[in-house]
Amino acid sequence: MVLEPAAEGGPAVIAAYLEAGQVSVREFPKPKGNVLIRMTTAGICNTDLELKAGYYGFAGIPGHEFVGVVERGPAGWVGKRVVGEINLACGKCEWCEGGLGRHCPRRTVLGIVKHPGAFAEYLTLPVENLLAVPKSMPDEVAVFTEPVAAACEILEQVKIPKGGEVAVLGDGKLGLLIGQVLLANGITVHQFGRHAEKLRIVKRQGALVGGKIPVARFQWVVEATGSAAGLATAVSMCRARGTVVMKSTVHERVGIDMAAVIVPEITLVGSRCGRFAPALKLLKEGKIDVDSMIHGEFALREAVSGFQRAAETGTLKILLRNR
Amino acid sequence: MVLEPAAEGGPAVIAAYLEAGQVSVREFPKPKGNVLIRMTTAGICNTDLELKAGYYGFAGIPGHEFVGVVERGPAGWVGKRVVGEINLACGKCEWCEGGLGRHCPRRTVLGIVKHPGAFAEYLTLPVENLLAVPKSMPDEVAVFTEPVAAACEILEQVKIPKGGEVAVLGDGKLGLLIGQVLLANGITVHQFGRHAEKLRIVKRQGALVGGKIPVARFQWVVEATGSAAGLATAVSMCRARGTVVMKSTVHERVGIDMAAVIVPEITLVGSRCGRFAPALKLLKEGKIDVDSMIHGEFALREAVSGFQRAAETGTLKILLRNR
Repeated sequence: MVLEPAAEGGPAVIAAYLEAGQVSVREFPKPKGNVLIRMTTAGICNTDLELKAGYYGFAGIPGHEFVGVVERGPAGWVGKRVVGEINLACGKCEWCEGGLGRHCPRRTVLGIVKHPGAFAEYLTLPVENLLAVPKSMPDEVAVFTEPVAAACEILEQVKIPKGGEVAVLGDGKLGLLIGQVLLANGITVHQFGRHAEKLRIVKRQGALVGGKIPVARFQWVVEATGSAAGLATAVSMCRARGTVVMKSTVHERVGIDMAAVIVPEITLVGSRCGRFAPALKLLKEGKIDVDSMIHGEFALREAVSGFQRAAETGTLKILLRNR
Repeated sequence: MVLEPAAEGGPAVIAAYLEAGQVSVREFPKPKGNVLIRMTTAGICNTDLELKAGYYGFAGIPGHEFVGVVERGPAGWVGKRVVGEINLACGKCEWCEGGLGRHCPRRTVLGIVKHPGAFAEYLTLPVENLLAVPKSMPDEVAVFTEPVAAACEILEQVKIPKGGEVAVLGDGKLGLLIGQVLLANGITVHQFGRHAEKLRIVKRQGALVGGKIPVARFQWVVEATGSAAGLATAVSMCRARGTVVMKSTVHERVGIDMAAVIVPEITLVGSRCGRFAPALKLLKEGKIDVDSMIHGEFALREAVSGFQRAAETGTLKILLRNR
């Protein structure tokens, strides 16, 4: 699958391109499409690093976390600053009708499955996918809408009461956003990770950090280590009849002892993308400290260096700018 | 851990004994305890075969599926035919107070964890664990109460509406009981297995059998193959946002692709023992065909042959009789 935008003529535009483990910056024709968005800021996600490594046999333009300005589209949208939901659904099937277009079996996914991504000067998306960014919100905050939505998804799937105690395992980009989203929802968060400087970001927001990993202690555990190895630890931390939310979308076979899940009757919940609206609301309310999570900015034409930096151990969010 | 009954003096009694992969029949002193039950019929379960293979480092008297007669105990119980819940809970902790003694962290488990089992002339259990067997119910039906309860547990954990379609993967002892319990609750069952003659048992009760294993088809899938390999198949059969119930308590590391669970946001629910009351009710109502599942009977003193037979491929329930 090669994700190259269809040509519309006119001057060439640049985009990052992944193929066979390599990142490059190439020229492409300006894309066709009813809605054309000029990307202004994009974020490199772990999924992008996995795509580079060959996840889904991906070759093409990656990128699904972005903010942009609508350059061509329906009246009312042109000139608007937008973020966009990443699943392009058919709009007709039972999933779409039930409001779960992100599970539409015919969907394509921005920068992941059969739709060219946002690490490009221009991208296209259906207008239904767009949400206007509030004027007061800087690009470098709005660009976190997609990963914050992925964190919010947990609360759409699992009922956790205010004051409930949740363990979040992992202090990477997603883990820190999950901790903060739970805190913003009045939940008590115990965050576990290996990097004191990263844990400080959630500690300032009220998370309990540090301490040994306890056994059979939590009713809810979120596994966000980004590695397959985290699941067994998450299961061991979970009380009988408790729930482990699986957030590490790694394409790796995980080894887990069936009896360790079955004997205590633990529930494992796979959790992926979420709706953008609640995420944008949390960001607008200033409930999530994303500034502390930005570890670097690169121009789009420097995407090769951006990917390099993003892959270094300990790096949180790397932004690509087009301006 | 050696599960030998405490001596009370008097004549020796016999029991099956597992140690280092071997079954033997040995003499023991008649056990002490406030409630003494003379076993009349017991059933060999896959867990017993796993204990023989070294699961939990077990050495001792196995057996947790039984019917017996109370020989000594509180007034009103003596002479009664009983079955017994297998978890011996502390009765005081938050689990016990919440009616979930089967998750009491201090529990012992009949014939499995630190409490001598039922493959013996006599066993002991707290009176709280006992349920009287209806007079009309033969021993060889009542002895299925424990595995039927394990099947009923699914409906205590997962809400499945009447008419809901469930795939049951596996046509072993537990798989066939699960299919029948779901059918008895008005659920549509698609049972998948390798043995036409076993599938006939659930087909007669109304299950749909045969056909290829479909992909992403079922909202609910019950994995009861008794092997770790079944889980990946169960996940592949499950629709996005669906639920896979894990019933194969095998002590084996299962390899599963995390993304296959996370991308479609599937929920995996570990499921073990259940309450006896609903199981006994279903059996009393004649809703479960257990007769067809009995593949052999052995006297307790022939337990070595009984275990041998139970371990042969294709064998369903083997009973041990003490009469």
